[in-house]
Amino acid sequence: MPTVEDLVERLFAGNRRALSRLLTLIENDSPEGRRALRLLYPSSGRAHTIGLTGSAGSGKSTLSGAIARETRRRGRTLGIVAIDPTSPFSQGALLGDRIRMQDLTSDPEVFLRSMATRGNMGGLAPSTAGVVTALDAFGKDAVLVETVGAGQDEVEVAGMADTTIVVLTPGAGDDVQAMKAGIMEIADILVVNKCDLPNADLLARQVASIVDAAPGARRTPIIKTAGAQEEGIGALLDAIEEHRAYIETSHIRERHRLEQARHQVIALARQRLIDRLVAEHGANGRLDDLVAQVARREIDPHSAADQLIGED
Amino acid sequence: MPTVEDLVERLFAGNRRALSRLLTLIENDSPEGRRALRLLYPSSGRAHTIGLTGSAGSGKSTLSGAIARETRRRGRTLGIVAIDPTSPFSQGALLGDRIRMQDLTSDPEVFLRSMATRGNMGGLAPSTAGVVTALDAFGKDAVLVETVGAGQDEVEVAGMADTTIVVLTPGAGDDVQAMKAGIMEIADILVVNKCDLPNADLLARQVASIVDAAPGARRTPIIKTAGAQEEGIGALLDAIEEHRAYIETSHIRERHRLEQARHQVIALARQRLIDRLVAEHGANGRLDDLVAQVARREIDPHSAADQLIGED
Repeated sequence: MPTVEDLVERLFAGNRRALSRLLTLIENDSPEGRRALRLLYPSSGRAHTIGLTGSAGSGKSTLSGAIARETRRRGRTLGIVAIDPTSPFSQGALLGDRIRMQDLTSDPEVFLRSMATRGNMGGLAPSTAGVVTALDAFGKDAVLVETVGAGQDEVEVAGMADTTIVVLTPGAGDDVQAMKAGIMEIADILVVNKCDLPNADLLARQVASIVDAAPGARRTPIIKTAGAQEEGIGALLDAIEEHRAYIETSHIRERHRLEQARHQVIALARQRLIDRLVAEHGANGRLDDLVAQVARREIDPHSAADQLIGED
Repeated sequence: MPTVEDLVERLFAGNRRALSRLLTLIENDSPEGRRALRLLYPSSGRAHTIGLTGSAGSGKSTLSGAIARETRRRGRTLGIVAIDPTSPFSQGALLGDRIRMQDLTSDPEVFLRSMATRGNMGGLAPSTAGVVTALDAFGKDAVLVETVGAGQDEVEVAGMADTTIVVLTPGAGDDVQAMKAGIMEIADILVVNKCDLPNADLLARQVASIVDAAPGARRTPIIKTAGAQEEGIGALLDAIEEHRAYIETSHIRERHRLEQARHQVIALARQRLIDRLVAEHGANGRLDDLVAQVARREIDPHSAADQLIGED
């Protein structure tokens, strides 16, 4: 049984199997996983991280595959983290998708990792950032995180990525008006995918009018793609490169990474604090007591929480 | 300026204006809001809480309106909390929707409250449970919480509701196969809405095959509706009543409310703990220091979190 230190050494030597094993430790948030992250973290921060998000059925996964191929054509290496339960990289894959992805899975310069979502309905696992760190330390030029969700997940992935791409499709039930503020808040690049479908031009025009109305120095580019036909992928890669250069020269990346660090430290501290509290008051029966009182409506949840943390 | 105690007294006397003002205090999570909840909580727990969730464009809002009308026809009172940014009850309303909802907004036995989402992309606000408590204490027979989202939000609303309804529509990009496990985990009732659209029968059959394959004593009912035409709404109300009786006689409701209480107390304690920590170490510069070290990759986020909570 190799130690974590052995595995990390092998990872730095380019061993994919060691990377895989470390990713499992990190994903399980085991003590070994945390030790691995401590060793890997100083060597991370070099990869360009890309978030790719959009609703189910928007063709994100096919798009991920096309982005990966074009990235390789341009001579760069890539890690892909698929948190999307509908991704062909994860278990839900249809046979056709799997075959289409085979050229990628056999390329030693592409590393795919599919992760379980937090619960069956999706959601970023808390260990996602750690998985990205490991792929980054492994030396990938870019790490793409693919996630599904119309809600909080997108905001989370945006908080983790240098460049966030939001994928929209005509007729997918995306209510552009309703998503307006949200899209502009997180998208660095907007993609209208399946641009061969009817209404694609209408959607692109709607999106353009929202983009035009948004304040700010940089106009969010809108790229039309057809992932399955690999159309528009060159333009998308160009837009990713442009955004990468933009955030570097304008020091946005620096500020953004400071925010990311803050967010991550607070999220981890929050989890540890509550774990400690639940362990302590779970063992002595205090938590069960308070919960039963709340369920019987003898005290309210706020007062119970105050008592639990010793602020009553 | 009336005190919180005055407002609570008026609420118990049936004053809607007092309820509105208290809801604002609760929604803002102000000290007055917490005091109000302390006073209201013992009188809550009587309302049947219903979660209504589904992706954007699934017609949930129109369905909420139809459910409200049928509830009133059956002589019961209702509170509606709309957290869906596309809901006609919230600002995103189209004129036509507003007009359609006018009969409800003028009914004194229906109380509508639209809430801001957590961030622009959706997500349940932490104060949602408090808003439900207030409507419950106000004496509403049922409280319906309408929320959008394909991800974590649905799980959250299910954790809060006695009965959770998941709305699906043909061709809305809902990937039934992918949602399979998730749907069965949270849905007490499945609705195939817009059942006049093509492929509605196909969707209903797909859903039925998932339901049939699921373990458990109770078969999740599948109700076909056309919200805009108010079709199938009687059957849906019957299914809600059936589920309500089922969870009462099988003591599921009791167990469920204990879980809800536990979840809520822990969530509130978690928030207070981190607020306290950030206030303390934010003021003394320790947090900024650690965050900067993480951003410079001098220490990893886990070690920083440990140091922050005093466990290094």
